Amino acid sequence: MKCQRYIEEKLRESFTLWGYEEVRSPTIEYLETLSTDLGSELAQSMFKFQDFDGRMLALRPEMTTPVARMVATRMFSTPEPIRLFYISNVFRYSRSYIERGREFWQAGVELVGCGGDQADGEVISLLASSLKELGLSELRLDLGHAGLFREVQKSTHLDPENSQIFRTLVGRRDQAKLEKFMSSNDFPSTLEKLILELSEIRNLEEAASALNRLSGLQKAKRFAKSLSSVADVLSDYHLEGEVYFDFSLTGRIEYYTGVVFEASVPGFGFSIGGGGRYDDLLLKLSGIRTPAVGFAIEMEKCLQALQSQGSDLSPIPDDFVRVLVSSISNERAVETANLLRDSGVVVMVDVAYRTRKKLIEYAKLAGMNCLLIVESSRKRPLTIYDVQSGTKKHLTVRSFLQEIFRGRTQ
Amino acid sequence: MKCQRYIEEKLRESFTLWGYEEVRSPTIEYLETLSTDLGSELAQSMFKFQDFDGRMLALRPEMTTPVARMVATRMFSTPEPIRLFYISNVFRYSRSYIERGREFWQAGVELVGCGGDQADGEVISLLASSLKELGLSELRLDLGHAGLFREVQKSTHLDPENSQIFRTLVGRRDQAKLEKFMSSNDFPSTLEKLILELSEIRNLEEAASALNRLSGLQKAKRFAKSLSSVADVLSDYHLEGEVYFDFSLTGRIEYYTGVVFEASVPGFGFSIGGGGRYDDLLLKLSGIRTPAVGFAIEMEKCLQALQSQGSDLSPIPDDFVRVLVSSISNERAVETANLLRDSGVVVMVDVAYRTRKKLIEYAKLAGMNCLLIVESSRKRPLTIYDVQSGTKKHLTVRSFLQEIFRGRTQ
Repeated sequence: MKCQRYIEEKLRESFTLWGYEEVRSPTIEYLETLSTDLGSELAQSMFKFQDFDGRMLALRPEMTTPVARMVATRMFSTPEPIRLFYISNVFRYSRSYIERGREFWQAGVELVGCGGDQADGEVISLLASSLKELGLSELRLDLGHAGLFREVQKSTHLDPENSQIFRTLVGRRDQAKLEKFMSSNDFPSTLEKLILELSEIRNLEEAASALNRLSGLQKAKRFAKSLSSVADVLSDYHLEGEVYFDFSLTGRIEYYTGVVFEASVPGFGFSIGGGGRYDDLLLKLSGIRTPAVGFAIEMEKCLQALQSQGSDLSPIPDDFVRVLVSSISNERAVETANLLRDSGVVVMVDVAYRTRKKLIEYAKLAGMNCLLIVESSRKRPLTIYDVQSGTKKHLTVRSFLQEIFRGRTQ
Repeated sequence: MKCQRYIEEKLRESFTLWGYEEVRSPTIEYLETLSTDLGSELAQSMFKFQDFDGRMLALRPEMTTPVARMVATRMFSTPEPIRLFYISNVFRYSRSYIERGREFWQAGVELVGCGGDQADGEVISLLASSLKELGLSELRLDLGHAGLFREVQKSTHLDPENSQIFRTLVGRRDQAKLEKFMSSNDFPSTLEKLILELSEIRNLEEAASALNRLSGLQKAKRFAKSLSSVADVLSDYHLEGEVYFDFSLTGRIEYYTGVVFEASVPGFGFSIGGGGRYDDLLLKLSGIRTPAVGFAIEMEKCLQALQSQGSDLSPIPDDFVRVLVSSISNERAVETANLLRDSGVVVMVDVAYRTRKKLIEYAKLAGMNCLLIVESSRKRPLTIYDVQSGTKKHLTVRSFLQEIFRGRTQ
């Protein structure tokens, strides 16, 4: 929980400093709303149930659609661009997600009401910056384009079923199977060559020139060009060394229309976060064309990636001094406890009337710094047992606080 | 969202300073677990659905059972007493809850592994203290006893159906209907008199002496006595002026076995939070008898109560200076933005290439303090437009930051 809270607060700080404001959406929404442009894989993974009137409800499987729905229904008078962020749990039911849990936490942003490379660049840079602020190093950003892939796919003239297989094979980066599939589906040899080439290219310029060698595919060429412009914006953020091209990055979610991206670190087998541009989702939800781009960070993956890089998160430094207070007089214990709490000390008051030995034992096990017995003496009413060293001394509340704060500034 | 976050952070701080540690539980649990000792009203209000294997799942309708389940299954080696808190959303489906929403947020604590008045006193005091820290005044604490009510009810020898009606009538404080119900159900006149008296008594000593006037009801008398001891502990916390007795406070939830309590403020028609002692729930979940006591604060009610007392929460003071940065050179804009963010300034970079007039308009609508144009001049590269006054001046980044921080300390 402490690690989770640490990651939350760090991400909240990054998003806030970039001008994004926090929103929360209901956990339950109409199935129909949540399914808008989601794609069958995620749509099938939703927890579904019926409302009183028979309408289908579901638990949100991701946050972009709920936030877009809020913008569409509640924020029509907010000046655009609108910058929003969320830190929320999402739910997926599908068996294939069991290993990663059915409920997991995402932190993400949506930049709504602004098309163009500058907006894409800001969102991708914020993803990179907030992951770095968390302490992740050797970050890698893979960029693809949902439109580019779709254009290439269109030119294959596959039926829907084979299109799905094609998409899966590209996504899996399985060159051998992909090659076999393409020859048995009579792909023109130039197209086959292009697809195999694009699947292996990791450089944006090379991707653009590979596309240019082929005639036709005008739209795809334009999309490749726009990817290069996004990369140019990213170099304003000094991210040029971290940006790669990934043709197979088509986004498992249907609503993406433009750039799609994923962040990862070497040696950790999952992407930590990702997102993309979705210029049609708000049109479908509100009837008004509104371009938008956003990302989500998988918080559990983030924590695992930090651990895989050797970040020692377990004892996250918190500034709190923790003491256990006990007294024959509960009133005195309470009074002292409140004085200490007012100064920011974490105080547990003994409620179990233990012996001194048991009190010290409990304080030790519960991770307290010291046990504090409040005596009736007015002069130096506190007997303080250091839980680690076992030493004891007599102090006033004031001198005890002074000692704590001296210790802190050292 | 800002108000919600403010309340969350204030409560988190209070709970932490009293030695409680934060936990989160899954939103979805087995229906069977969540229903343990919950009582029919809440049990019927759960959102339910089936798992793959046919087992029934549900969304948590409250947090005490999930936290108790976590303690029972995960924390058997943690030294007791265990102090936990949560800030979580809960879900209720019942039609009667529609007015208050189906998803709402609760912040609460559980003190596990400790019976006795000291523990009850700590938890009730923490409820009062954390509500006061939020800014609520004229707090009122009503105390009842789940066992006391149950003993009185037992002595009525009603069948289950009529017991339910009796309980509802007592809960509603409807003296006229209660009187009619008791005479038509042949209550002994001494018992009838006692119940009517208890229903009107608001003082703990009077309740004890009313019970003492009747023969029998030994257990009920003991419970009344233990309520008085809790009240004694509360006076160590200087809460004696805020504590009242309420016989009708039986807790809508079955698991309560001892003291039950509610916090409210005058002129606001709902209780803001409440809780009680549940000494059997952990036995039912884990097979090991473990006493426990806790409370939940309804966060939306809290906010409404604060508003009803005239607390002006809407512009919660946040320390952030907010600026919109624009430049012909995106690189320069980004560089300046990052410098300012490093100093804790909230910065939006213009991604829409607006005219200066539109930029100022947007900055004003979006609640920014100023618009900052980064020019190519090395000497004083920033042109700063004050959004409110419309004045402009030229500064370096350093002098701009100095000006901000001077403004803050004024």
